[in-house]
Amino acid sequence: MKEIIGVYAGIFNATLDEYLMHRLDCPSPVKDAVAYAMTGGGKRLRPMLCYLGAEFAGKSCEEVSDFALAVELIHGYSLIHDDLPCMDNDTLRRGKPTTHVKFGEAVALLAGDAMLNSAFEVLFETVNSSKDVLAASYIAKYAGTTGMIGGQCMDITDNNGEGYDETALLSMYSKKTSGLLIAALLSGAVSCGCNKEEEVDLINFADYLGVAYQITDDILDCTSTEEVLGKNVGSDEKSDKKTYVAMFGMDNAVKKAKDYTQRAVACIAKYGERAEKLIGLCHYLVGRNY
Amino acid sequence: MKEIIGVYAGIFNATLDEYLMHRLDCPSPVKDAVAYAMTGGGKRLRPMLCYLGAEFAGKSCEEVSDFALAVELIHGYSLIHDDLPCMDNDTLRRGKPTTHVKFGEAVALLAGDAMLNSAFEVLFETVNSSKDVLAASYIAKYAGTTGMIGGQCMDITDNNGEGYDETALLSMYSKKTSGLLIAALLSGAVSCGCNKEEEVDLINFADYLGVAYQITDDILDCTSTEEVLGKNVGSDEKSDKKTYVAMFGMDNAVKKAKDYTQRAVACIAKYGERAEKLIGLCHYLVGRNY
Repeated sequence: MKEIIGVYAGIFNATLDEYLMHRLDCPSPVKDAVAYAMTGGGKRLRPMLCYLGAEFAGKSCEEVSDFALAVELIHGYSLIHDDLPCMDNDTLRRGKPTTHVKFGEAVALLAGDAMLNSAFEVLFETVNSSKDVLAASYIAKYAGTTGMIGGQCMDITDNNGEGYDETALLSMYSKKTSGLLIAALLSGAVSCGCNKEEEVDLINFADYLGVAYQITDDILDCTSTEEVLGKNVGSDEKSDKKTYVAMFGMDNAVKKAKDYTQRAVACIAKYGERAEKLIGLCHYLVGRNY
Repeated sequence: MKEIIGVYAGIFNATLDEYLMHRLDCPSPVKDAVAYAMTGGGKRLRPMLCYLGAEFAGKSCEEVSDFALAVELIHGYSLIHDDLPCMDNDTLRRGKPTTHVKFGEAVALLAGDAMLNSAFEVLFETVNSSKDVLAASYIAKYAGTTGMIGGQCMDITDNNGEGYDETALLSMYSKKTSGLLIAALLSGAVSCGCNKEEEVDLINFADYLGVAYQITDDILDCTSTEEVLGKNVGSDEKSDKKTYVAMFGMDNAVKKAKDYTQRAVACIAKYGERAEKLIGLCHYLVGRNY
């Protein structure tokens, strides 16, 4: 699966290079900050999900390259803003200083704004059917206040943990982390013509996958090193953040991640060969150690 | 003109209230911060331009209410992020504490992100023709790195003023301030079917208007009071910002604002009655003292 991930990442990186070279018209140093934040690593999980959504619907990656680009720009902006001193105050990301450490807070803030806005510029340039508009609207929705931003809102305001139970934590993970995975997979599949039943199955798959992925992140934050992960570790504990590991212990976290992986797979197993890569990716991500 | 502005603001405020009550689904306190930032004053200049764009093209305000909402959400997010400590560090806006002073920086940052994202959610909900998609794409473009964000990038990186001349300053104003005025007017007119020649004339009109408006802002920052403006004054001087007044003196600023007002009017005078309100608004804004 690692090789397959590499192939899709290569496809995405070509799209990204072309975007940074020829499409993104932006004054420096903000442009440099965008390029810095968008390059130099990352599994490109969200673009891959978008591509696999297209393949699930019988089309190819090329059909959805702008949807993949838009989702990854949104992911990138969310990392820049999340790392800022007023948020998580992280200094290391993908083995490099975070964007505000490298370029200053003002440039990092604007770079994030530029990436979010640019994602929608890309989408408006690419949509040319009602299917495309629906696919793009899903990206906006799952990136927004009922999706990723909504999860971030819950994350920053529930740190005291009062009245915070497993349901609330899983709901926050579902918005914060699953949100963009759903956006990626769904936009790829919907713009390529999947039907309503498939839509629902893909949403549920990506939702369970996102929660399992986030719990795995929590586990790695406790068990891995900065060298392996390329980002600050132990920061969840430091900032007294509510995580699955902190609230329910390591054993339960491992169990829950496996349970949600199985639930994810169960949503799409019926599609047989069409779902093979998605299922492989799911198992790989929860078993990862980086 | 003041009464007419009030009427259009009333139309917009009804749309905004409905949005805040029934459409914006967002966890508190970020939702409260969005409501705080979006209500309690403002001329609603951008929504009015959007409405006047629709009327210019022979349609009514109701046709473009979501375009007006999207542009004003983008304006609102830009003010929140601009006021943050790492940017202008302003504490007063429309006579109230700025959003980060009231809610803290993390909530203000997320509220701004939520508003920008929500603007595009609103647009994707409303577009249902190729004219609409084009109109929405103009909003994304003029709000982005070749428009408003591009102007902000220039603004934060050219503070030392080296090699900074009138052309560079006016280009920054054209992006930073005219950008969203163009987005507002153009989206209203284009979604209601104006033709290409009219598009160009409206872009040029709003571009000159925006620069004249920004120079008037510079003048008021030097001559007016916090009580009248409802925001920090003298902050341009304090932060050693390059403004037209600081670079070329008060007399030249007054002359330039008048010159650009005349240029704006000249772009659309040929449309006679169809352009009357736009021309009236233009004269009013440059003559304002608040």
